[in-house]
Amino acid sequence: MNRELNQIVEKQFFSIKDKNFTLQCGKSLKDITIAYETFGRLNAKKNNAILILHALTKDSHAAGIYDHKDEKPGWWDVMIGPGKAIDTDIYFVICSNILGGCMGSTGPASIMPGKKRPYGMNFPMVTITDMVRVQKRLIDHLKIEKLLAVTGGSLGGMQVLEWSVRYPDMMESAIPIATTMKHSALSIAFNEVARQAITSDPNWNNGNYSQEKKPDMGLSVARMIGHITYLSDKSMRLKFGRKMQDKKDAPFTFDSKFQVESYLKYQGQKFVTRFDANSFLYITKAADYFDLEEQHGDGSPVDSFLNAKARFLVISYSSDWLYPTSESKAIVNALKKNRLDVSFCEIESEWGHDAFLLQDKRLDKMIKGFLASVYEKTEDN
Amino acid sequence: MNRELNQIVEKQFFSIKDKNFTLQCGKSLKDITIAYETFGRLNAKKNNAILILHALTKDSHAAGIYDHKDEKPGWWDVMIGPGKAIDTDIYFVICSNILGGCMGSTGPASIMPGKKRPYGMNFPMVTITDMVRVQKRLIDHLKIEKLLAVTGGSLGGMQVLEWSVRYPDMMESAIPIATTMKHSALSIAFNEVARQAITSDPNWNNGNYSQEKKPDMGLSVARMIGHITYLSDKSMRLKFGRKMQDKKDAPFTFDSKFQVESYLKYQGQKFVTRFDANSFLYITKAADYFDLEEQHGDGSPVDSFLNAKARFLVISYSSDWLYPTSESKAIVNALKKNRLDVSFCEIESEWGHDAFLLQDKRLDKMIKGFLASVYEKTEDN
Repeated sequence: MNRELNQIVEKQFFSIKDKNFTLQCGKSLKDITIAYETFGRLNAKKNNAILILHALTKDSHAAGIYDHKDEKPGWWDVMIGPGKAIDTDIYFVICSNILGGCMGSTGPASIMPGKKRPYGMNFPMVTITDMVRVQKRLIDHLKIEKLLAVTGGSLGGMQVLEWSVRYPDMMESAIPIATTMKHSALSIAFNEVARQAITSDPNWNNGNYSQEKKPDMGLSVARMIGHITYLSDKSMRLKFGRKMQDKKDAPFTFDSKFQVESYLKYQGQKFVTRFDANSFLYITKAADYFDLEEQHGDGSPVDSFLNAKARFLVISYSSDWLYPTSESKAIVNALKKNRLDVSFCEIESEWGHDAFLLQDKRLDKMIKGFLASVYEKTEDN
Repeated sequence: MNRELNQIVEKQFFSIKDKNFTLQCGKSLKDITIAYETFGRLNAKKNNAILILHALTKDSHAAGIYDHKDEKPGWWDVMIGPGKAIDTDIYFVICSNILGGCMGSTGPASIMPGKKRPYGMNFPMVTITDMVRVQKRLIDHLKIEKLLAVTGGSLGGMQVLEWSVRYPDMMESAIPIATTMKHSALSIAFNEVARQAITSDPNWNNGNYSQEKKPDMGLSVARMIGHITYLSDKSMRLKFGRKMQDKKDAPFTFDSKFQVESYLKYQGQKFVTRFDANSFLYITKAADYFDLEEQHGDGSPVDSFLNAKARFLVISYSSDWLYPTSESKAIVNALKKNRLDVSFCEIESEWGHDAFLLQDKRLDKMIKGFLASVYEKTEDN
């Protein structure tokens, strides 16, 4: 039986003290701070550490609660905890907020060194590579030489792929979930429309907005667009269909609402209270620019993984239309042609891209088994 | 060989002179004007008339050109003209702008009777039924007792379905293309986000905007959202892939653009020069509220068509994810259970929902053959 993570977790901070940290775009950052959290304990051999990489709008708070008043546990609490698939009785779990984020790590909402105002659009472009290079520094700081596993879904999965080819000697295994080697035109299109919604909001003001007058309308629309892509046609039929929000609603008025409309509007409005609009612009651009083939394989998917050494477990979802199974299969094919040890599973699900965030016994079992097998082998050596 | 429609077409206007025309919502309109165009000639027997019903953002200008300077012919010119699938040497073709539209027919941008300002959001809610009832009045006005065919794609297809059950004695045949009996939650969701983009634009001003200060930003984003849903994952891969707009563009900057981004932005910007934002709100709501089953069948798809008498040709496209083939099959099943004469074809295509607007020999052949067969039978009687 799973128990809850009774450990009250705390956000911790790590600073990169380089005078300048040069980014992939050629520009550099000084004073980088990375927010991170850990769950479970690092063992004496330091061979039980698992790095969790988060998706677009998540943060370091992957599991547990911050205090006893905290009603909502971390975003992957269904997966991480004592007795759970990523078992904190066995493993030491690390999750950090990505570079460019707005949940404690340095990003466009951070105050510029030596100034009194946030970077805004003066923040340099960051890439998935930059995010991963910063995470590597955090792992160095924690004095871990080799991670047992690196895992994450969606944008987190892209980071897993980048980790596997950039730091192959620092990881035993990789579990990329519901992800892709590069964004399709469709994914870029959705991101661009979401960005247009933000930059069209007069409050955006070229990125120079105050906390009192934020581009909430634009960011809310952007979130609604994203939210549709995280679901599926079928999941929306099951969840909402054509049900009205209020049964008394007379039809044929502008005020009456289908449930799906109220749901999306609520999601949009909730999002603006926790997320920075400029951060949304930067992170979606990083996702669009991510192209493992171009960067590591000169355009060849097989060559992309020439450096990789990890054991892989690749997972996709049948109803994910943002990063469909075909894109996971392309990863698997490329890995196999490099004679890497790879397991692949497409999970039948109606819940679209976001399925990886939901409680699912099949995912639990697969990850639990895979980690146990990798850990056992590590212990044997 | 097809020839171009050498006829210069002219927009004509028809007025409904009722004191009040009561709408489905219970409210009424006075002074309804409907813009329409005709192509070809009505024969003496008046049995060669085909009514074309347009999609969301189109108009009465289905074929031909307005004058010799007009570079772009009507929106279905590939289909309508001498020698074409809908052959104007044989048939008399009618197309009118829908009620609630902004291309000559009465809609929210029209001046309110007795006032100096447009209706704006004071315009009553209009439905697919209302649009069809107004079209019927136009056909009466043209003194046509029975149409040879009623056809249209998308929102036009919904009107075809409504025609088939509302005025079964006024039509020999029906050709609904790429359409549905009712919007899915996914379709409603996309429409709602598009509407949110418009109403979030401060220039929208509760619908009271001037022509000098229109909610162009919001309408442009709305159009971009729509445009994505009209394409398909595959068509976007083929058309754009990850190609950059400018080869010299350095990567990792905000200014450099993928081609798909530039394309969508251009589509959005072009749209606002020709379309009214309030009209977009009203028509998308009409689409969302359309539910043939609920209105004519008490929730049963079979009973929806109890009144229908027409011969049907139902067409869907394999890559249409807005109104997927399954929704056309549901129409076909319901028609068959009513023992109606129905042909069905799913056209294999990569071009998504908008495929019906493109030149396609298979569609041409099917429609040409179907119309010829229906016309022959009419002539025999």
